[in-house]
Amino acid sequence: MEPFALKNALENVRNTTPLVHCITNYVTVNDCANALLASGGSPIMSDEPADVADITAICGGLVLNIGTLNARSIEAMHVAGARAAELGHAIVLDPVGAGASALRTDTAGELLDELPVRVVRGNMSEVKALAGASAATRGVDVNPDDVVTEENLAASAAFARDLAARSGAVVAVTGAIDIVADADRAFAIRNGSPLMGHITGAGCMLTCVCAAFAVANPQALLESQVAAVAGMGLAGQQAAGRMGGMDGNGSFRTYLLDALYRLNGDALEAGAKVEELA
Amino acid sequence: MEPFALKNALENVRNTTPLVHCITNYVTVNDCANALLASGGSPIMSDEPADVADITAICGGLVLNIGTLNARSIEAMHVAGARAAELGHAIVLDPVGAGASALRTDTAGELLDELPVRVVRGNMSEVKALAGASAATRGVDVNPDDVVTEENLAASAAFARDLAARSGAVVAVTGAIDIVADADRAFAIRNGSPLMGHITGAGCMLTCVCAAFAVANPQALLESQVAAVAGMGLAGQQAAGRMGGMDGNGSFRTYLLDALYRLNGDALEAGAKVEELA
Amino acid sequence: MEPFALKNALENVRNTTPLVHCITNYVTVNDCANALLASGGSPIMSDEPADVADITAICGGLVLNIGTLNARSIEAMHVAGARAAELGHAIVLDPVGAGASALRTDTAGELLDELPVRVVRGNMSEVKALAGASAATRGVDVNPDDVVTEENLAASAAFARDLAARSGAVVAVTGAIDIVADADRAFAIRNGSPLMGHITGAGCMLTCVCAAFAVANPQALLESQVAAVAGMGLAGQQAAGRMGGMDGNGSFRTYLLDALYRLNGDALEAGAKVEELA
Repeated sequence: MEPFALKNALENVRNTTPLVHCITNYVTVNDCANALLASGGSPIMSDEPADVADITAICGGLVLNIGTLNARSIEAMHVAGARAAELGHAIVLDPVGAGASALRTDTAGELLDELPVRVVRGNMSEVKALAGASAATRGVDVNPDDVVTEENLAASAAFARDLAARSGAVVAVTGAIDIVADADRAFAIRNGSPLMGHITGAGCMLTCVCAAFAVANPQALLESQVAAVAGMGLAGQQAAGRMGGMDGNGSFRTYLLDALYRLNGDALEAGAKVEELA
Repeated sequence: MEPFALKNALENVRNTTPLVHCITNYVTVNDCANALLASGGSPIMSDEPADVADITAICGGLVLNIGTLNARSIEAMHVAGARAAELGHAIVLDPVGAGASALRTDTAGELLDELPVRVVRGNMSEVKALAGASAATRGVDVNPDDVVTEENLAASAAFARDLAARSGAVVAVTGAIDIVADADRAFAIRNGSPLMGHITGAGCMLTCVCAAFAVANPQALLESQVAAVAGMGLAGQQAAGRMGGMDGNGSFRTYLLDALYRLNGDALEAGAKVEELA
Repeated sequence: MEPFALKNALENVRNTTPLVHCITNYVTVNDCANALLASGGSPIMSDEPADVADITAICGGLVLNIGTLNARSIEAMHVAGARAAELGHAIVLDPVGAGASALRTDTAGELLDELPVRVVRGNMSEVKALAGASAATRGVDVNPDDVVTEENLAASAAFARDLAARSGAVVAVTGAIDIVADADRAFAIRNGSPLMGHITGAGCMLTCVCAAFAVANPQALLESQVAAVAGMGLAGQQAAGRMGGMDGNGSFRTYLLDALYRLNGDALEAGAKVEELA
């Protein structure tokens, strides 16, 4: 991947202010909205079935995050998804907690089967559950057995490519090492900070940012997702570097949004640690 | 408007701790609660129809914000609104996203028709949609064609006065220039910072603060709303002035609450940029 | 209580990362999740009846916070509570606003009657309402008549012990002076800062932290709750000490999470102001 693609991907978001309809959990929704704004997009939230078709129609992208799913929001996801599909919008699925409950696993699977999902973003446990692989999920955190390491990187990338091939979506598996893959190519991204696991919502925020990047870069979807993942990781590194002696996860959360807000194309190119896997 | 009114309006909030029942969206609800506390009020949230009549009865004000409306919360708005009306409470309507969906436009219109709404607070696109004027709303942001400018200020103020006359509510239209009007008088307020558009919730927070000011200043409703709008704008300016080289919208959000918390009557008088329009 | 118990209680949380399923209000849920992470636990939120039995099964604790209860979440509390009871999980009840509405008072009472609640955490007005004592609740804040003072401390502790005896739960009543009691013993805790009442969610966050401490310290439940309450209070003091001249409740909220994140066993022992009451 040429470095310019990452820079372009970010600048395309900043220059077009993509509107993203988010049906997402109420735990991290405020951070999701602010992360979208920080990256250059614009958020709209709605999860009422009677509202979502209109709302999604004025947007360019749709995030389906099942973090606090309920009967109403599941219905809303199907209604909004169908409308977004008709309109050719970028649909991004975040299977939060898939594998942790039957309802989550089933809902995520149905959405993936039913809709032309353009990007799946989750941790390896969630993505494995979504793929129907047997995976014991530790709630909303990755199962230790599923952590992507240098040792299992090739196998993990092959898994992501396989799910991408089967689903037609770009698959972004995030963790200590991130993987972004479509059916043909896979990239490892080694940005980020362990502190991102000490706040709630780093994954949910990234999912929304992925949607903004997908909307703004329709001709370079895979590259745009690499840019989004590397960008969020770089923001995490910068936030970690800013931590002072009295700071904890409260400040880190603020710094993460700040760093995402201040990220520019040149910094992204210079800081992104992206490797194309064989 | 005499300067003392602004100071008095704030001090009346601080001295009486008005309780405000908020039926509001889950995106910005935490910031709404903290903004109410920062301004001197006290928040209570409840959106279950079986709960809201009791809850609203112990309050002095009621915020109806349709940002993430659903069938249950719409019903709760009607139930709470009816009870608040019986009790003579200050009802404040925020028509978030009116014009963006039929459900939002209709719900906001029905609430305005049905209830003795004392204050409407929105951006110009939302307020136009509420007024039944044709307006294309860009999600939760103002449509560029609807932005209040020096050029269209007189016409915008006339529009706000007209809606105030028809509805009986004070109308607060916020944007680059804010307008606060009742049927007879209109004020332009030139406080605020463009950074307020880079966080989610500046408008929602203001709506809740407007409610606290309305409750605490029943004899000077129009003036109290000018004070609330100028006060939030001044807080935005102070927050913007505090931004350092690594700060972004994460820090700005924190600074905005901080500035609102530290705002006092003298600073409000000194900093408010209020002009009565002819 | 020997000081080491407080230190051990915190270290047990940090060393075991207890998973806590939270059915909690959407106002403060993000802060609850980050407070759990700061204290060393791990949060999962779910309030859909069809989801909660699976989710609670993979956790060790369950928080039932009725702050924005609705028909669906009430049902979810009963379903999750029944499953958690079967599994012997630590159930913690936060009767937010009990006394302020019939639905809240009744729901909290039913949950306490029906489930083997291990900890109740609330302010005195809420806890009195829960106990069926006549109490006028001022929304989600304590009624001035119910404030625990040095003068009524013995009577307040007797009340807490009595409710503990009747319910089988440890009762944590928090305010200017905190009380933690079981049927036999009661402790007064004099940590904390008045600034904790100027943000939303200090109580809700503490409730979640109490759950993490309960899960991690099954052999020393009472002591663990003293540690949780003293720890949050100490974090509040440290956050207050960090406040600068431009800081308000926005920064205080961040500093509170930061201080909780940085709290260690030695600091807790050194700073906790715990007195066993006769």
